[in-house]
Amino acid sequence: MIYVVFAIFLAACFAAGSTGGLFPPGEWYQKLRKPWWTPPNWLFPVAWTILYLCMAAAGARVAMSPGNGLAMALWALQIALNGLWTPVFFGLRRMKLGLRVLGLLWLSVAATLVALWQVDMIAGVLFVPYLVWVSVAAALNLSVLRLNRTVEH
Amino acid sequence: MIYVVFAIFLAACFAAGSTGGLFPPGEWYQKLRKPWWTPPNWLFPVAWTILYLCMAAAGARVAMSPGNGLAMALWALQIALNGLWTPVFFGLRRMKLGLRVLGLLWLSVAATLVALWQVDMIAGVLFVPYLVWVSVAAALNLSVLRLNRTVEH
Repeated sequence: MIYVVFAIFLAACFAAGSTGGLFPPGEWYQKLRKPWWTPPNWLFPVAWTILYLCMAAAGARVAMSPGNGLAMALWALQIALNGLWTPVFFGLRRMKLGLRVLGLLWLSVAATLVALWQVDMIAGVLFVPYLVWVSVAAALNLSVLRLNRTVEH
Repeated sequence: MIYVVFAIFLAACFAAGSTGGLFPPGEWYQKLRKPWWTPPNWLFPVAWTILYLCMAAAGARVAMSPGNGLAMALWALQIALNGLWTPVFFGLRRMKLGLRVLGLLWLSVAATLVALWQVDMIAGVLFVPYLVWVSVAAALNLSVLRLNRTVEH
């Protein structure tokens, strides 16, 4: 059963992540001024694939454990917010709103990490790289917003 | 605790539903040919608000119950797919892809309904209006696609 549950959580991750393919960065993003520490483009899908595997594993471990209610609700919240950023940033090109979405995503990921940890320590640890990556993404979104004030809608 | 969990599931619903405000139907949709049984515009936000309350209540009831793993994973999957349709249909105006997303959403909602029902009958019943509404939405998407072949990208 844990493998079926893992596969379902992974499908949820890829549903959210499919926005990356549907709303690709494109020419608009390439032309934006970016900070020197911007990760290379190829790293984003690689990082997300690893993060999705960790997120699904954390979800599956806790789904199989008692007392998982809070963690499961938060897992659902963070994946709903996760799928929102790409359409807002690359679809609507709304950088400020994208930063707000990332702020909410960061809070929900941090809360999920804590709630998972309380049920299963390994599940909590599996969410650490995700929180780090969302922190980097938020710093990048903020930096791009500041470097391209005139482009903002 | 069940009220906190209910509020978190509701927040996940509104995160997915916020795409409705971010990608409004607009002039493109108004000009499309629609079937005679198309629900009036005002009904969509009303229906979704009621559905979100039912979905969050179903999620919270089952989150507090033992043996909820499969239902919780499916709840997360359906909300990730739920937030995908509006950016695809109204954002990208891809009607065929929108229909595919709705097909996956329908399957995930039906599976969630069954899994919830196995844990808590009332939770399963709370998902019935959602499945009915997604069926109507899929029929509408299909009908609009057929009536506007030349508009499709």
